[in-house]
Amino acid sequence: MSDHTIRSFDVDLGALSGKILEMARLAQKQLADALDALEKSDVALAEQVIASDEMIDALQRDIEEKAIVAIARWQPMAVDLREIVATLRMSYDIERIGDLGESVARRTIALAGAPRIGKAMQHFQGMARLVLVHLACVIESYECRDITGAMEIWRKDEEIDTLGNALFRELLSDMSETPDTIAYCTHVLFCAKSIERVGDHVSNIAESIYYIVEGRPLPKLPSRAASAGRGALPPAA
Amino acid sequence: MSDHTIRSFDVDLGALSGKILEMARLAQKQLADALDALEKSDVALAEQVIASDEMIDALQRDIEEKAIVAIARWQPMAVDLREIVATLRMSYDIERIGDLGESVARRTIALAGAPRIGKAMQHFQGMARLVLVHLACVIESYECRDITGAMEIWRKDEEIDTLGNALFRELLSDMSETPDTIAYCTHVLFCAKSIERVGDHVSNIAESIYYIVEGRPLPKLPSRAASAGRGALPPAA
Repeated sequence: MSDHTIRSFDVDLGALSGKILEMARLAQKQLADALDALEKSDVALAEQVIASDEMIDALQRDIEEKAIVAIARWQPMAVDLREIVATLRMSYDIERIGDLGESVARRTIALAGAPRIGKAMQHFQGMARLVLVHLACVIESYECRDITGAMEIWRKDEEIDTLGNALFRELLSDMSETPDTIAYCTHVLFCAKSIERVGDHVSNIAESIYYIVEGRPLPKLPSRAASAGRGALPPAA
Repeated sequence: MSDHTIRSFDVDLGALSGKILEMARLAQKQLADALDALEKSDVALAEQVIASDEMIDALQRDIEEKAIVAIARWQPMAVDLREIVATLRMSYDIERIGDLGESVARRTIALAGAPRIGKAMQHFQGMARLVLVHLACVIESYECRDITGAMEIWRKDEEIDTLGNALFRELLSDMSETPDTIAYCTHVLFCAKSIERVGDHVSNIAESIYYIVEGRPLPKLPSRAASAGRGALPPAA
């Protein structure tokens, strides 16, 4: 590519990167709003989150189309293609974070008016707020191409799984002691599962940042490989 | 592109398509094995499913790399790029189906030895086997580029959500009536959620087939748009 072509390609790549940041910040806001709505039983806010998910989906389709047009126009080399493919992969992870925020919002509506269990909700919110912090950090790491920051968040995903596991046990015990709360606790269980999944997507985004900066996939580390895909899982009895 | 180049590009595209089919059939086998393991409390088979998930992940990375090399080598036009991007998108959906099969296998191990509730497990298996049929159909639709078959499966995802909803209510009621079964039922609830998510990924694959054949995204239909991302969701009380 000539110098001029390289500069123009960089403009398109920068625009793509800007769209990903826009999409990620929107998903971050949606998730924060969904958690606020759940905490305050704010049905109107939950409905707003559900209605806005379509914006995230539209941004994802826009990113995909922009990536295709940039590749067709500039015919970049493999190293730049890797960045674009990693960007596409990130866009799928962010779209899912949006869906999971929407799912928490839908459960907020289902739970409205139900008697709550303060302690379980407090522990849920603690875990959820930590995932929100991780999401904010990974977005910043992407913006600054900060591989150290991204890897720190990647390693911290196990903390989320541990919190999730403790919360699952607590909710099972609440249900056994007070069977009236079974439906309520089940919804909170699913919200916790959604948040744990958000943590997994944050972790995937960190891996994509590694791939963009280093030009190769993150090597599998034994400690993470052993727990990959497991998530929190209490025993049956 | 010259005739010769076009033919060589088609060879690479065909190889990519073959890899996707290999990956999809492996995920299908893994899910079927996971369901068998759950039905028969076969811990050894469940462990085999968990160990094999890495093969699906490796195929996904291979597909991504092959796609990048094919694009860099042949510099295809936008229409062919769309097919490659849709193929990548499908590979992410198939990878998740593999993860969800693994998740069912992990719960099989957690549940081993726990007393079972025959009826709930029977209803779960009915729903799960239907999703397996949908998965088989969508793989065949991809192989034959059969848009009609793909759209039929896409429309049928609502049936899975309806079955999921009925099963969720049944499990909540089982838990209320027999609190001893709470831990067991919770695991089955999560297995049902995993299967419902497999249905969503099958639906996404059908959308990607539409995109490959028609060269444009599937238009949003009002009936599906209203239920998108919701899944089964019993009320709180």
